[in-house]
Amino acid sequence: MAGLYLSLAMLAPAAVDFYFGNPDWQVFAVSSFAVGAICLASAAANRGINAPFSRRLGFLVVNLLWITLSVTGAIPFYLASLGLDMADALFESVSAVTTTGATVISGLDSAPPGLLLWRSLLQWIGGIGIVALGLLVLPYLKVGGFTVFKMESSDTSEKPFARFAVFVRAFFAIYIGLTLTCAILYRVLGMSDFDALNHAMTTMATGGFSTHDASFGAFTSPGLIWTGTVFMAIAGLPFSVLILFAVRGRLDALRDPQIFAYGGILLVLSIVIALSLRLSHDESFGMALTHATFNVVSVVTTTGYASSDYTLWGPLTVAILLVATFLGGCSGSTSGGIKAYRLVIIASSIRSGLMRLIYPNSVRPVRYGSVAVEPDMQRTVFLFVCAYIGIWALGSIALAATGLDIETALSGSITALANVGPGIGPIIGPSGNFSSLGDPAKLILVFLMLLGRLEILVVLVLLLPAFWRE
Amino acid sequence: MAGLYLSLAMLAPAAVDFYFGNPDWQVFAVSSFAVGAICLASAAANRGINAPFSRRLGFLVVNLLWITLSVTGAIPFYLASLGLDMADALFESVSAVTTTGATVISGLDSAPPGLLLWRSLLQWIGGIGIVALGLLVLPYLKVGGFTVFKMESSDTSEKPFARFAVFVRAFFAIYIGLTLTCAILYRVLGMSDFDALNHAMTTMATGGFSTHDASFGAFTSPGLIWTGTVFMAIAGLPFSVLILFAVRGRLDALRDPQIFAYGGILLVLSIVIALSLRLSHDESFGMALTHATFNVVSVVTTTGYASSDYTLWGPLTVAILLVATFLGGCSGSTSGGIKAYRLVIIASSIRSGLMRLIYPNSVRPVRYGSVAVEPDMQRTVFLFVCAYIGIWALGSIALAATGLDIETALSGSITALANVGPGIGPIIGPSGNFSSLGDPAKLILVFLMLLGRLEILVVLVLLLPAFWRE
Repeated sequence: MAGLYLSLAMLAPAAVDFYFGNPDWQVFAVSSFAVGAICLASAAANRGINAPFSRRLGFLVVNLLWITLSVTGAIPFYLASLGLDMADALFESVSAVTTTGATVISGLDSAPPGLLLWRSLLQWIGGIGIVALGLLVLPYLKVGGFTVFKMESSDTSEKPFARFAVFVRAFFAIYIGLTLTCAILYRVLGMSDFDALNHAMTTMATGGFSTHDASFGAFTSPGLIWTGTVFMAIAGLPFSVLILFAVRGRLDALRDPQIFAYGGILLVLSIVIALSLRLSHDESFGMALTHATFNVVSVVTTTGYASSDYTLWGPLTVAILLVATFLGGCSGSTSGGIKAYRLVIIASSIRSGLMRLIYPNSVRPVRYGSVAVEPDMQRTVFLFVCAYIGIWALGSIALAATGLDIETALSGSITALANVGPGIGPIIGPSGNFSSLGDPAKLILVFLMLLGRLEILVVLVLLLPAFWRE
Repeated sequence: MAGLYLSLAMLAPAAVDFYFGNPDWQVFAVSSFAVGAICLASAAANRGINAPFSRRLGFLVVNLLWITLSVTGAIPFYLASLGLDMADALFESVSAVTTTGATVISGLDSAPPGLLLWRSLLQWIGGIGIVALGLLVLPYLKVGGFTVFKMESSDTSEKPFARFAVFVRAFFAIYIGLTLTCAILYRVLGMSDFDALNHAMTTMATGGFSTHDASFGAFTSPGLIWTGTVFMAIAGLPFSVLILFAVRGRLDALRDPQIFAYGGILLVLSIVIALSLRLSHDESFGMALTHATFNVVSVVTTTGYASSDYTLWGPLTVAILLVATFLGGCSGSTSGGIKAYRLVIIASSIRSGLMRLIYPNSVRPVRYGSVAVEPDMQRTVFLFVCAYIGIWALGSIALAATGLDIETALSGSITALANVGPGIGPIIGPSGNFSSLGDPAKLILVFLMLLGRLEILVVLVLLLPAFWRE
């Protein structure tokens, strides 16, 4: 089914390229036809087979879905006139589908428009996929699911989206609505039609693909930069909050503790970096704050645009943004990383654990806002964090084994795993790009991007022998 | 009391400097007298006051003890003829007491012998302190205590060291015995008397202070390098195992799972780095293995000697040794870091957690060997790891704020927190030294070294307002 939608989606760049007279339109048309035919055929073949649904099947399906999306998405990149090889095409597709935004294409400004649209579209679709996964599938699989639903268990009488269809319709309306609003604002504030549409899609997906090599640095107007900042920040919020607001005009879901944590992180980091930029460079505080906030929001929401090469702002900024790469936005958004709700639970756990060290008999539950967090949930959070740090370390070692310097290896591993996009250092920093990396390094990053996007544990369970038994 | 022992210990370098005709002997004599007098006076003043012992008092005493040791130990460095300022003297003393081994002194080869002996002695005493803390105090405070005692709860009839005095005597006998054996071997294999004694003390303390700027690189004989490797590896074992062996000739305590993990890590990392060194440099496999094993053991046991500048061996080695900086040796040894028993528990938790994701009803306990790990213990381990990673990140940001580059900041923060010694990069790498850092950076590192040495949580509880209430 997913393939079918993708097949339809390919018709959009086909039309654009046809309109602009670029021969790539044939690529998209043929890809669309082939993918569509295969999907229809396999759907027909499986018609009537209703496999009993189990959790194991759930894990398998999620993994296969993202792999299928990635491989299918890579076809146009491979066939298009840019001449990417298979590793490059796969890298670009996975970076799009996982809404990472790391690119191996240089010369974006003169790239065929259909291909650029395809990148943005794939990222936008990846954004839909990840919200659906986070709100609907992961809570069922008990991985990193922490939706507004559970928190609202107090008002059992009126379940906000008891009816699935209402929820899905509201989600699409909001996602499309916000994208269009963002595009219109971008257009009004000075982007071309094409730039506005592409950037709006990759903003809302917290993806970060741009149509320019300079990324968002191609636009210098403070209005554009602040618009980007605001829409990235919105895209890092839980979609359930936006839906509640749209459906019932209620804002009380904003009282979610993860939103306070997320907002607090954005605020503090932006101000610290703005001050450091103001002190170290001859920049007005207004401009310093504009750029600091944009890049902090970009990294924390795991979007990965850069409004300028922030690695030149001094070691404090580099260190803060490297650490910020780990954090991520809210659960139920398109962002990646550890995510704010986990940080809230960890902070409360540390506090509660320290209290128990002093007063062993004190029973101070780990809290998420006013709700006590069940031990099972705590365990999954710690599990995730340990796996996250461990995989980051192993990924760094693997990247270093391909010959990359330590800065590139450490930051490349985490920027892929958190689905951010740029790393630090001269190669993959905000003004660099991933094209010069060798194929082994690209494939390691592809794996890390998928691992991070599927919240790690969904992929790791496949490595257990017990998963495949019986 | 601790001050009193230290006051006596100061008489040793006083004697050495007096013997070699160095005027510093007066410094040590005066320091010794002053410290001894203060201690005796305060002991007399407190005589008869038997404060009721509580856990809070326990935490406070441990913190005060290490601070007192550090400040007292700094006095000779400050007064000695090398002309260290107060920050430098404190840094050197904390680095010694915490058995870290990072130094701000360059020109060690021509430094006064009394001062060199004082550094080594302070580190050796720090080693005694940390073993006592790990085996006797921390388990009582329920922080990172995981001694052989608990594991042996099966044979309740014959508690191996029910009698405290036997244990303490056995510990001192073994620590002193191993130090002397190591010194004799170093001497026989080519070190001078003075070098042999100093290096033996800092080897057994997994401290890593050397009497040469080139660290262990001053000695090229493979015999010496392997002797160092073996004694560092022994010092990274739980002392309880060595005591059991010495007291009853039983080796079955070696079946501790953390020892398998520790041995496995040393073996795998040494072989991988040796292969990488063999392939990238024109070195025989024997020499590659000699140097790879020495430096892996040095970093994992958190000793911090370097037999050569391993940061020149290529990015894979740098990445592996940076990650190895986090790990640490066994609980109940003089080493720091996360420690092998926590790694064993984390690995088992991840496995058990993944199993529960597939089979939610499976009750697969987290195991340490054949023993199930209580939930309280699991919680403290995760607490520690999250605090460890979080403090590493904050430490890196703080160091970057003082203007250090990202490589120095990231590796400096972890090498201090894990009590290893050298970091990576041109400044604080194995061939560098910490003297060029500014005072703020030095004080941050001092704090990180103490935090790491006291297993983080012991210090963090002091930050809770509840700790000071009532």
